[in-house]
Amino acid sequence: MKIGKQTYLIDKPVYIVGNFSIVGPKEGEGSFGKYFGLVLNNDLWGEKSFEKCEIKMHRETILRAIYSSGLNENQIDAVMGGDLLNQIIATNFAAKDIDSIYLGIYGACSTFGEALGLASLLIATEQMKTITCSTSSHFSSAERQYRFPLELGNQRTPTAQWTVTGAGCSVLSAEPRAEQPKVKITAVTFGKVTDYGIDDENNMGAAMAPAAASTLIAHFKELDRSPAYYDAIWTGDLGKFGAGLLNYIMSSDNLPLSDTHHDAGAEYYRANQHPVQGGSGAGCSSTVFNSYLIDKLRKREIKRLLLCPTGALLSKYTPLQGATVPAIAHAVAIEAED
Amino acid sequence: MKIGKQTYLIDKPVYIVGNFSIVGPKEGEGSFGKYFGLVLNNDLWGEKSFEKCEIKMHRETILRAIYSSGLNENQIDAVMGGDLLNQIIATNFAAKDIDSIYLGIYGACSTFGEALGLASLLIATEQMKTITCSTSSHFSSAERQYRFPLELGNQRTPTAQWTVTGAGCSVLSAEPRAEQPKVKITAVTFGKVTDYGIDDENNMGAAMAPAAASTLIAHFKELDRSPAYYDAIWTGDLGKFGAGLLNYIMSSDNLPLSDTHHDAGAEYYRANQHPVQGGSGAGCSSTVFNSYLIDKLRKREIKRLLLCPTGALLSKYTPLQGATVPAIAHAVAIEAED
Repeated sequence: MKIGKQTYLIDKPVYIVGNFSIVGPKEGEGSFGKYFGLVLNNDLWGEKSFEKCEIKMHRETILRAIYSSGLNENQIDAVMGGDLLNQIIATNFAAKDIDSIYLGIYGACSTFGEALGLASLLIATEQMKTITCSTSSHFSSAERQYRFPLELGNQRTPTAQWTVTGAGCSVLSAEPRAEQPKVKITAVTFGKVTDYGIDDENNMGAAMAPAAASTLIAHFKELDRSPAYYDAIWTGDLGKFGAGLLNYIMSSDNLPLSDTHHDAGAEYYRANQHPVQGGSGAGCSSTVFNSYLIDKLRKREIKRLLLCPTGALLSKYTPLQGATVPAIAHAVAIEAED
Repeated sequence: MKIGKQTYLIDKPVYIVGNFSIVGPKEGEGSFGKYFGLVLNNDLWGEKSFEKCEIKMHRETILRAIYSSGLNENQIDAVMGGDLLNQIIATNFAAKDIDSIYLGIYGACSTFGEALGLASLLIATEQMKTITCSTSSHFSSAERQYRFPLELGNQRTPTAQWTVTGAGCSVLSAEPRAEQPKVKITAVTFGKVTDYGIDDENNMGAAMAPAAASTLIAHFKELDRSPAYYDAIWTGDLGKFGAGLLNYIMSSDNLPLSDTHHDAGAEYYRANQHPVQGGSGAGCSSTVFNSYLIDKLRKREIKRLLLCPTGALLSKYTPLQGATVPAIAHAVAIEAED
């Protein structure tokens, strides 16, 4: 049911019944290391290219998330997801091996939020029963596609972030899984494209913070909720600088996020791992959600979570042609059922 | 309502209430020239790059399709669409100027079918009322992104196609428009990723024909229909060679398409325009549908149309890394209401 201009209440329960996450070695040593489903020993996983490794991570994450849900592959109505590689090839190629319809989507690092939102609407309206929502990114494939060859060893700017090598998948279903603490999606606020004129492609946090604020403000106002409704509000990959900006904008709008706000990117790595402003990438929020956060929800350490993946809608060429960096964010309310 | 594994009957009417198409000069001289909404005089439209021209085409097509529907921008629930540029920047940047949520999707040249299908499900279930579905491509931006710099003047292979410079948009709505002959979406069959091992990125027709066949066969079998149910079956951009392959596969499966089959790509240009196998690109099927085909539907010269946009899920780098070319197609049944 639509509430306001951007928000949808999920009327019939949509349960999260399966999860998996696969990350690279650096991510395994980071703050959420012990929660991930699988930590790779290196960033190739036996493949001949970083892109092929990302495809394998993406495919295996979907397959293991389905396995973890106790469902069979042929019970999946749709594979929905995306990634940062040109023409989202990691997701396209991963979907080859799953006998289901495929719905590729793209919202940069907000893609996981878009997938959860769209899938929730399709399941709540009984069009589909079970959908996998997956995203991935890979430091080395992203670095050479968006920035410089790794071999250059380029210096990073003070506002740079570190692309997460990781893939995460949630299986959404109309039916809860027996003997599993129930976690369900209760509301979604889809984002609008927001552009505050940031033109520094090494400052994604500044580009994305206004988009996160726009979506969060719409969410709270349209549902007539305050940030205090949630035990925890997790943005995707604003990084430390971007998270600070978001809090500044929210406070200016009299909706301060206070202690409940965390940013997956800002907290992804430990300080001695030198991620500059923190992690980023389409795999950032999806790996944290499908490991650490789902664990907290199943254990009721978090009962009401607002997950808000954030994405910068640029390509390598838009800044070179003098364009600004538009951004988008989608917010998904996820609650542990009593 | 789901029928079989891939098909959805659209239970509540979803009307196509607005359309627009913008194409380049070569397209304007092609077979469908007189039907397009706007034919540009050159392929830059006053912009400084081909990419910026594609963004402008995409944005203007959405705005003019909304205008043609008699609706206001603020009645649009969602902008949904995609394009072939890296990180679908044409659609991302176009969506900046429309005050609505944005749902970026990607299925290469099948994107227009994915948009119509997803939007139909969201409208039929009363989650949303009005959605714009748009896609674009541009010969010059695609050529330098996927193949060679234009300045090289490279020779084309015998199975090559010519990327359409064009953008098309349909406005879908739960409410028909008064005094307009009613055209509605009645069924959708979403595709699976299909890979027959084609590894020649200059032979998209061969890569996509099995995907089109897979989706069409699922459509006919799951709905228990024969191809004769439709007055016309239009695939997206298989080109002449690919269209021949599709007919061969369909005949082998005892579902020959016969005279009702047309391919938008194969018929897009005139022979003296040297398109080799025909047109291609995400703008190929969307510009033909939103000009020539919608005109035929409104005039009842076609009463039942099956539109099946086809897409090759590669990037520039997947063939260079030795990968095959997976493909996908989505079929949308569109009928003129008596």
